[in-house]
Amino acid sequence: MGKIKEKAVCLVSGGMDSLVSMAMAIEDYDVCMMHAYYGQLTQERELKAFRDISAHYSIDKVMTFSLSTLAQIGGSSLTDPEIDVHTGGLVDGIPNTYVPFRNAHLLSAAVSWAEVLGASRVFIGAVEEDSSGYPDCRESFFRAFEKVVVEGTLPGTKIEIVTPLLHLTKTEIVRKGIQMRVPFELSWSCYKNNEKACGVCDSCILRLRAFEGAGLEDPILYEEKG
Amino acid sequence: MGKIKEKAVCLVSGGMDSLVSMAMAIEDYDVCMMHAYYGQLTQERELKAFRDISAHYSIDKVMTFSLSTLAQIGGSSLTDPEIDVHTGGLVDGIPNTYVPFRNAHLLSAAVSWAEVLGASRVFIGAVEEDSSGYPDCRESFFRAFEKVVVEGTLPGTKIEIVTPLLHLTKTEIVRKGIQMRVPFELSWSCYKNNEKACGVCDSCILRLRAFEGAGLEDPILYEEKG
Repeated sequence: MGKIKEKAVCLVSGGMDSLVSMAMAIEDYDVCMMHAYYGQLTQERELKAFRDISAHYSIDKVMTFSLSTLAQIGGSSLTDPEIDVHTGGLVDGIPNTYVPFRNAHLLSAAVSWAEVLGASRVFIGAVEEDSSGYPDCRESFFRAFEKVVVEGTLPGTKIEIVTPLLHLTKTEIVRKGIQMRVPFELSWSCYKNNEKACGVCDSCILRLRAFEGAGLEDPILYEEKG
Repeated sequence: MGKIKEKAVCLVSGGMDSLVSMAMAIEDYDVCMMHAYYGQLTQERELKAFRDISAHYSIDKVMTFSLSTLAQIGGSSLTDPEIDVHTGGLVDGIPNTYVPFRNAHLLSAAVSWAEVLGASRVFIGAVEEDSSGYPDCRESFFRAFEKVVVEGTLPGTKIEIVTPLLHLTKTEIVRKGIQMRVPFELSWSCYKNNEKACGVCDSCILRLRAFEGAGLEDPILYEEKG
């Protein structure tokens, strides 16, 4: 008889990183999937990816929730239609796709749900070095957030923030996903398009580079490959 | 010529504490008011209190936002209609009105907005000792959250979490409010009712005791005084 697994809340955007992070969680935990939408340009496409992934893994405990306050606040090309998503290739500095303090909102929601579920882990597929340099993707941010969880939840609550991909390269993440047979074809990373991935936004460039590094073809369709 | 004031985002629930906290902020800052609703029983009444307070102080920069994920998650008598709000008088331990990790959601929203506005302060009217003992109202929680803000926002961002009431008694808060002529008659604290305050939920009991301690009559209407 198997031991009853502890629960883990997995934040799943629908992109390649959160998919691999969740696949890693499934090996040891009873996974509850959580997804936020916030008026980002590809909101509907990401929701579809989330649903396809939950169906693929037959996860029953799923929650999608609105973070509409991020759309109200704006300040990012993902949520403000007046700001163009950067497409000229990767550049130094933090790109305008940064959504101010977004991961604090995601972690807050995941921790609230974990507290009610009695889950002991929150998984998030953040990548620190080989990505866009968002401040809320840094190791120091997640470790600081763990202290907030200790202080801000009921006595006796133990919820660890797990970031299994934090120091991997995107190519290593693709390799890991392939080993675990994750359905990359169901995931969606493009910041701009909902039908065929644009191939030229930062997220597409990072994804294409990751597959190229692994010597593999990305199974999703692209308009062009920038 | 006056110096241009720095901006502060004030979280205002519509209750007596956040009203006094905001009144203190107004003395030194250009105040932007923020209010969350999350399916709590008195959602409409609190929104009215928020609007009345913003009108009283002629604050133009206001944002109300939905935290519907807290209603989806439940786990509190304020958001789950199947759990009765406790009314038998104050008891030891953390009451079922605790909304799991709620203040992390509120602070995340306020910090995101502050980052976009260029505000240097976030005010929250939390009270640690003389209140219901919620873990996310402790000094240690707020200080830990400040570290998260440093790590999770753009380089150069400086946002301090200000908790001016944290170590005051509720009676001291009433006295401070009276000195500043805050419109307590516009505020709403009751957890249960939307017309006349119930007088018997923990929040009403704490408020009534606060006014009694200050030797003053609470200007709002009560069904009974528990």
